[in-house]
Amino acid sequence: MLIETLSVFPEVFGSYFSTSILGRAQEAGIVSFESHDLRDWTHDRHRTVDDSPFGGGQGMLMKPAPIFEAVGDISARGDAAPHVIFFSPCGHAYDESCAERLSHEKRLLMVCGRYEGIDERAYDLADEVISLGDYILTGGELAAMVVADSVVRLLPGALGDEMSARDESFSCGLLEYAQYTRPADYDGRRVPDVLLSGDHASVDAWRRTSAIERTALWRPDLLDSVALSDDEKAFAESVTKANETNDDAAICGDSGGGCLDV
Amino acid sequence: MLIETLSVFPEVFGSYFSTSILGRAQEAGIVSFESHDLRDWTHDRHRTVDDSPFGGGQGMLMKPAPIFEAVGDISARGDAAPHVIFFSPCGHAYDESCAERLSHEKRLLMVCGRYEGIDERAYDLADEVISLGDYILTGGELAAMVVADSVVRLLPGALGDEMSARDESFSCGLLEYAQYTRPADYDGRRVPDVLLSGDHASVDAWRRTSAIERTALWRPDLLDSVALSDDEKAFAESVTKANETNDDAAICGDSGGGCLDV
Repeated sequence: MLIETLSVFPEVFGSYFSTSILGRAQEAGIVSFESHDLRDWTHDRHRTVDDSPFGGGQGMLMKPAPIFEAVGDISARGDAAPHVIFFSPCGHAYDESCAERLSHEKRLLMVCGRYEGIDERAYDLADEVISLGDYILTGGELAAMVVADSVVRLLPGALGDEMSARDESFSCGLLEYAQYTRPADYDGRRVPDVLLSGDHASVDAWRRTSAIERTALWRPDLLDSVALSDDEKAFAESVTKANETNDDAAICGDSGGGCLDV
Repeated sequence: MLIETLSVFPEVFGSYFSTSILGRAQEAGIVSFESHDLRDWTHDRHRTVDDSPFGGGQGMLMKPAPIFEAVGDISARGDAAPHVIFFSPCGHAYDESCAERLSHEKRLLMVCGRYEGIDERAYDLADEVISLGDYILTGGELAAMVVADSVVRLLPGALGDEMSARDESFSCGLLEYAQYTRPADYDGRRVPDVLLSGDHASVDAWRRTSAIERTALWRPDLLDSVALSDDEKAFAESVTKANETNDDAAICGDSGGGCLDV
């Protein structure tokens, strides 16, 4: 996969893209990154990419011309045209199913806005407009890094053979169960006994219960799309109900998760 | 404000934190960044921070001991204890009101997980657990950058005097209106005439309509918490209704936004 960015700060991507899993995926030839400088498509001495908004108002907007020219030129290179992504609070909410879908693209081009925003006409270039969430960033660069990161980890081989990208929260519709490693007793905080038992069936049952409990506590909205047995449904409802009278549990980690006997 | 991170990849933050608005805010003394290396709180030759999960399973988990020791040591430094943030899909959804709240903290410490996750007991250290959205990242570092970015831009002076951090999507409950800059005609794509009229009242009215239209199209869920006049309410409902029979409009930018006559 080829992942390209178009930005006025092309230098911010290299450090993250060369570290850890993304760096190794790049070395292994699973993905390539290319950061384009939008100012390369300007024609004035100051390499101007912004201008003041029509109708007045604060700040500067990104001009349409450099973006149209850049996306046109970049798209014409190589064999396949890229899937072009813009970021905006107007876009659809980014989620794991979106990452999964994008992981099947051959080529992504992510256009990163700055300043007060991008001239509306430039969005005509977008195959897709993504919103990371209901918050404002200083630019689209971090959004592009988030999409790249979440997509690359899904590419075959990126996490190595010993790990599965899909044994995680959201992949089965539930939040992931509580996880523990050594020591079994850390300063009085003990790991649930069942996890030390060596009884795989009990461990599996505990984990299923833990995942349902955590989802019922913190993300009951996810439960509608998960296949639960009648007993599991009743358990999830009791957790959600008990939680409605206990605001403290709304902070993850407070319950310890999966503390139900199975 | 002091923003600290605790991570096994402390080197990934510098590039982003020293660029553009965050870099200038740092130079202006509005914010300081400090990246701590979790491995500094290990006691073996290999500086081990991870171990295999109790109960079996793929991958490695972050051990509780280095995280407890690091957060304890770091918190004891300086005058005020930091507000400690962990990231997890179990956390509450991050949004602009959360960024606004965090912008009033004196000191943030963000703990960034890696591998398959963090030992559940370490979450006892968290003042707050945040979820960026329903997707999986390779680690918490990008999440910490997103929070830092969205918080720093709200600090007084960070965007400069000429810009307001709050004249944006979400700040008034609506998505922001469509924005345009020169040229008025780009390759046949024309800016709405009203924005060229110089009539400020008409521009303001057009922008209000544009914001309502875009919110009704792409984020009707936001409308419930916005004060709209009866006429505006009727308009929003007509937009949402028309959109339900037109899937194409679900991609931002397709409508051009704010194309209603006012």
